Amino acid sequence: MEIKHIQTKKFLDSNFLLENEVAEELYHEHAKDMPIIDYHCHLPPTDLADDRQFSNLTEIWLEGDHYKWRAMRTNGVDEKYITGDATAKEKFLKWAETVPYTLCNPLYHWTHLELKRYFDISELVNTHTAEAIYHEAGTQLAHPEFSCRNILRRMNVEVVCTTDDPVDSLEHHIALKKDFEVRVLPTFRPDKAYAVENETAYANYVEALSEVTGTAVNSFDTLMAALEKRISFFHENGCRLSDHGLERLYHEKVSADEVRKIFLKVLGGHALSTEEIQKFKYAVLVELSRLYHKFGWTQQFHLGALRNNNARMMRRLGPDTGFDSIGDFSQAASLADFLNELDSTDQLAQTILYNLNPRDNEVMATMIGNFNDGSVAGKIQFGSGWWFLDQKDGMTRQMIALSNMGLLSRFVGMLTDSRSFMSYPRHEYFRRILCNLLGTDVVNGEIPYDIDLLGGMVKNICYNNAKEYFKF
Amino acid sequence: MEIKHIQTKKFLDSNFLLENEVAEELYHEHAKDMPIIDYHCHLPPTDLADDRQFSNLTEIWLEGDHYKWRAMRTNGVDEKYITGDATAKEKFLKWAETVPYTLCNPLYHWTHLELKRYFDISELVNTHTAEAIYHEAGTQLAHPEFSCRNILRRMNVEVVCTTDDPVDSLEHHIALKKDFEVRVLPTFRPDKAYAVENETAYANYVEALSEVTGTAVNSFDTLMAALEKRISFFHENGCRLSDHGLERLYHEKVSADEVRKIFLKVLGGHALSTEEIQKFKYAVLVELSRLYHKFGWTQQFHLGALRNNNARMMRRLGPDTGFDSIGDFSQAASLADFLNELDSTDQLAQTILYNLNPRDNEVMATMIGNFNDGSVAGKIQFGSGWWFLDQKDGMTRQMIALSNMGLLSRFVGMLTDSRSFMSYPRHEYFRRILCNLLGTDVVNGEIPYDIDLLGGMVKNICYNNAKEYFKF
Amino acid sequence: MEIKHIQTKKFLDSNFLLENEVAEELYHEHAKDMPIIDYHCHLPPTDLADDRQFSNLTEIWLEGDHYKWRAMRTNGVDEKYITGDATAKEKFLKWAETVPYTLCNPLYHWTHLELKRYFDISELVNTHTAEAIYHEAGTQLAHPEFSCRNILRRMNVEVVCTTDDPVDSLEHHIALKKDFEVRVLPTFRPDKAYAVENETAYANYVEALSEVTGTAVNSFDTLMAALEKRISFFHENGCRLSDHGLERLYHEKVSADEVRKIFLKVLGGHALSTEEIQKFKYAVLVELSRLYHKFGWTQQFHLGALRNNNARMMRRLGPDTGFDSIGDFSQAASLADFLNELDSTDQLAQTILYNLNPRDNEVMATMIGNFNDGSVAGKIQFGSGWWFLDQKDGMTRQMIALSNMGLLSRFVGMLTDSRSFMSYPRHEYFRRILCNLLGTDVVNGEIPYDIDLLGGMVKNICYNNAKEYFKF
Repeated sequence: MEIKHIQTKKFLDSNFLLENEVAEELYHEHAKDMPIIDYHCHLPPTDLADDRQFSNLTEIWLEGDHYKWRAMRTNGVDEKYITGDATAKEKFLKWAETVPYTLCNPLYHWTHLELKRYFDISELVNTHTAEAIYHEAGTQLAHPEFSCRNILRRMNVEVVCTTDDPVDSLEHHIALKKDFEVRVLPTFRPDKAYAVENETAYANYVEALSEVTGTAVNSFDTLMAALEKRISFFHENGCRLSDHGLERLYHEKVSADEVRKIFLKVLGGHALSTEEIQKFKYAVLVELSRLYHKFGWTQQFHLGALRNNNARMMRRLGPDTGFDSIGDFSQAASLADFLNELDSTDQLAQTILYNLNPRDNEVMATMIGNFNDGSVAGKIQFGSGWWFLDQKDGMTRQMIALSNMGLLSRFVGMLTDSRSFMSYPRHEYFRRILCNLLGTDVVNGEIPYDIDLLGGMVKNICYNNAKEYFKF
Repeated sequence: MEIKHIQTKKFLDSNFLLENEVAEELYHEHAKDMPIIDYHCHLPPTDLADDRQFSNLTEIWLEGDHYKWRAMRTNGVDEKYITGDATAKEKFLKWAETVPYTLCNPLYHWTHLELKRYFDISELVNTHTAEAIYHEAGTQLAHPEFSCRNILRRMNVEVVCTTDDPVDSLEHHIALKKDFEVRVLPTFRPDKAYAVENETAYANYVEALSEVTGTAVNSFDTLMAALEKRISFFHENGCRLSDHGLERLYHEKVSADEVRKIFLKVLGGHALSTEEIQKFKYAVLVELSRLYHKFGWTQQFHLGALRNNNARMMRRLGPDTGFDSIGDFSQAASLADFLNELDSTDQLAQTILYNLNPRDNEVMATMIGNFNDGSVAGKIQFGSGWWFLDQKDGMTRQMIALSNMGLLSRFVGMLTDSRSFMSYPRHEYFRRILCNLLGTDVVNGEIPYDIDLLGGMVKNICYNNAKEYFKF
Repeated sequence: MEIKHIQTKKFLDSNFLLENEVAEELYHEHAKDMPIIDYHCHLPPTDLADDRQFSNLTEIWLEGDHYKWRAMRTNGVDEKYITGDATAKEKFLKWAETVPYTLCNPLYHWTHLELKRYFDISELVNTHTAEAIYHEAGTQLAHPEFSCRNILRRMNVEVVCTTDDPVDSLEHHIALKKDFEVRVLPTFRPDKAYAVENETAYANYVEALSEVTGTAVNSFDTLMAALEKRISFFHENGCRLSDHGLERLYHEKVSADEVRKIFLKVLGGHALSTEEIQKFKYAVLVELSRLYHKFGWTQQFHLGALRNNNARMMRRLGPDTGFDSIGDFSQAASLADFLNELDSTDQLAQTILYNLNPRDNEVMATMIGNFNDGSVAGKIQFGSGWWFLDQKDGMTRQMIALSNMGLLSRFVGMLTDSRSFMSYPRHEYFRRILCNLLGTDVVNGEIPYDIDLLGGMVKNICYNNAKEYFKF
């Protein structure tokens, strides 16, 4: 074959994802060095409290990462090498074998970006390079700069918000406050407080809540009082955010009396009807949202996931193991009703709406405008591309919808939403995409080349907006 | 900081939105000078009849413009400066302060394009330039060429179709016919003729209809007879279009007898059930559509808005004040049934379907093909990007869906849908996007560089298709 | 007008759709010469058995092509020249008149690509060139190389899977096996086996099934036994695929007893309720799917079409004549339940999901991941852009969704889904788009320029993956 001299940009070079000079300028001079406020993630506070050190690449990179698991299964890898009893090294080798097959999937980007930023490894991952990479990374992981806390320091992280159950003692957060300069704050995630589908599990949860609050939770009113106690406790420990995962938000007509009866019924060990479950959840959600408003918090709703679709694997591995997908629920009318219910008494807290189906981007981007009332800039936010949408195309479409139908300039920007300490380059990834969007518009003459205006906007979206909005 | 010499296209120059030479050629030589047929807008006929002159930029530009209001609220501006009692100048200054924050939103384009085309002002709007712009525009607005009629003349407008209620006297249209060479024609928008949700308001409307037609409207049959009289009256005064705003079109099984009973019930002051409301609306819509067919009109359906979502602001400011958003209604099956009901007796008029949720573009682009029967070229139309979609991305996606699944060449093109005399550059905007789409395809070798074919197609979509289709 | 020297790529040149040198290299050196496995189409086996020769361009190109019919109707062509009694030549001339109006529609591409590849005709089709093209193509069609079999040979087709009813004798497939080196295999498409909406037609079908299997089908159990016999017969004759066309997949609670009763009811000539129809279909679908798994087949589901929307034309022309469109059905939850029902007993066959509404791309691209269990690489597939989506934009969006949320590298690629022997260049079209996607990513530095990796991936998607997956 003849020798070709085709000009291509080098994969993952310093101008990765930056397609023109304005984009480069914006990224390198305005975005790159901004600190990170990671206002939503699933990092285990215990790892930070213990300042955990990882033994090998499999431990820090593959354990719990159901994105990678899913890709491996699709690639025909046996479960033994994914969640089974294969050795750490065997598992890594199977992942390395899969990597070339993830070409064009964001995993290909994450993988190589993370290796480069954490370990300065630039090799492409495949069966030939796997051994050497595993060895080199393993060696580096033993160094102190790879402890959990040092990773956050190296990544220029200023705030981390973890995700925590109302009954959590927050002991690790309390401990970390004393001897770690990065602020590690809890987020109130009360999904279990209204998970009345399973009456036994719910009764246990109510008992735990009674215990932790030192009050007998035996009615809807005491339930809400106990939850307010926990909100107050979380607040004292720096929490300014709540989070909810729901297929959709809805609006129900339900009387106080009815809710009280439903609570007693489920606590009495009786299964509820679908209608009762829906009404109860709605009632708790509305009351919680009013409390968030009272405490000046920001509430987050992650909408639209269709979870645990594979019963066979659910029985074997439990939830959050890679068998979830994007739902196609009706969102708009009921979401508007829910937010309006809160707004009509002026009890609508700052809110971030995340959607999982990109077909709903425009619904979300316009929904937020219905409740932006001039009281706070960007009060209601359309959250950054989430889960399956946390990649170039998903982030871009979210930002384009937001910019077309709202104010991109007021966007609070990126979060990792990750369980892994290896995910911080996602902020870099987001920032590159943002700068490229703006730079491309400049080069095309669609926005003016006013570097003060643009640079300021970039800095705001990367950091300042979040800082001002959340007031941690 | 070192001096950079980055090549970018100048913002809003003469080749704005034109990314290659073919696009430039198509726009400047084939699109730019075509007259405008603005076949759907909300301009007040009274302003044209009076040849109104505006006192200042706030009056012509901010009053009634809920797009700008929404952006200001999102930017944290107090309602006082939006719809409140602040002075005209104070309001403008708050808008000017907001403009830099609209970067990447179509408002940034509209704002600067309108200032340039109407006032030859090229400054970027911000707090520094606000005073001077307000002053300069204010001075110019006092000149005769800024009267409403002269604006239309300067903008090369040939036909304007306003939006009017069936009981409207059309006095302004009649007066304008005598002494204004631009044709200002009414559009029949009978939303109130089937707004039976509120029995009191409906009774009042029926009374107004009785009065204006000189017949007692006391049954479904006399209602339809009265509406036909008004259609005939509108037709005599140049109307060739109707318009309907609906969440979705639907199809109901309902007997003539049932409809008659529902009418008597609501007129008797009784509230209707949801089912009765739906059935009644359907019955009126079908009969109206048959009348439109009889009169050779084109019917327009604006589908998919979720309106008045903020009850608190609705109570304060009323409808159409910036609290509407994009719905996610099911559209396809019921829309097909509705159109089929009319088509099955060969009474389907020329129809334009506008959708608000871009996720439905492909549903609409294929739906029109189901009822294009060879009788008229482009008989059923997929309308141009509407409301939130009236921007580069929205228009582009509409044209791409239409071109992939129908005949772009038969498209009747752009309309302003605006309440403001400042909105005519939207035709320019649309034409640039259209020419850019075609030019890009040529440069990429996806369509041939046959300038007769392309230039003709551009002229048709900008003007000739509408002229031939509507037969005003 | 001044003379312009604008650089554009020549329409339909050898690098058509290839926008950079990497794309060109990938296409010309890795994609172009791969054989074709056309694993889903609607070619008539009888034409291949008879080795049919076509009399003129209208016969091979316009007959049965409802895509072209639809465009002609939209262009205002009378039905006489579409499906009516005009001569073959008159029909062609009307099509040629329409072609320039299809600019930007995929028909413009298909038309010129097919003329070029089959007849080496490069003229643009219009009223001026129509006569000459009709004559030239007509002359060529008389040559032996335009027989159906020779067309397949020239197009480098290795396998063709037709679409066949369970009661089909497969006589043509059997005959072809003996004297045609291209493998022409049947696909099991049992839509009629559960079309219980019409009890009379269903009874006739059951009778035909009884006859062809030599067993009395008089119960649900004998129905399923008879279908298994046919599956076995199809299997013996090389079938490895089934296919189903459905608005949506669903999941019903239905007992064996209930299904048996429903079968007896419909066979007894009684009309079924909507609920009974749904339950019966579900029961048959689940049982059939289990049989497909047993036989090691791949099942295909074509989801989301809204068919036969124009009753007037349906009465006149019957189904599949150009009056179908894209539906907006809810897909995700019920599809997950259906697949899970099969998976939970480990009886889920290899599956390909095709969706017609591109808004559901992400639902499909993530749904497949729920059931990829590591047993087979790419076990559950998201099918290539179908019907209205079988064009550049549709294919690109499908591949982007798949690559973002799954493994593009495991994709089984393109199929024609066509009724016409002129459609083979669609594989070329697809391959160009695929190579362009990858090439663009390389040039932008988003994937590495590793020609072994990329070239292998291209070859796999064009051919190897299908070969390995279907095991014909």
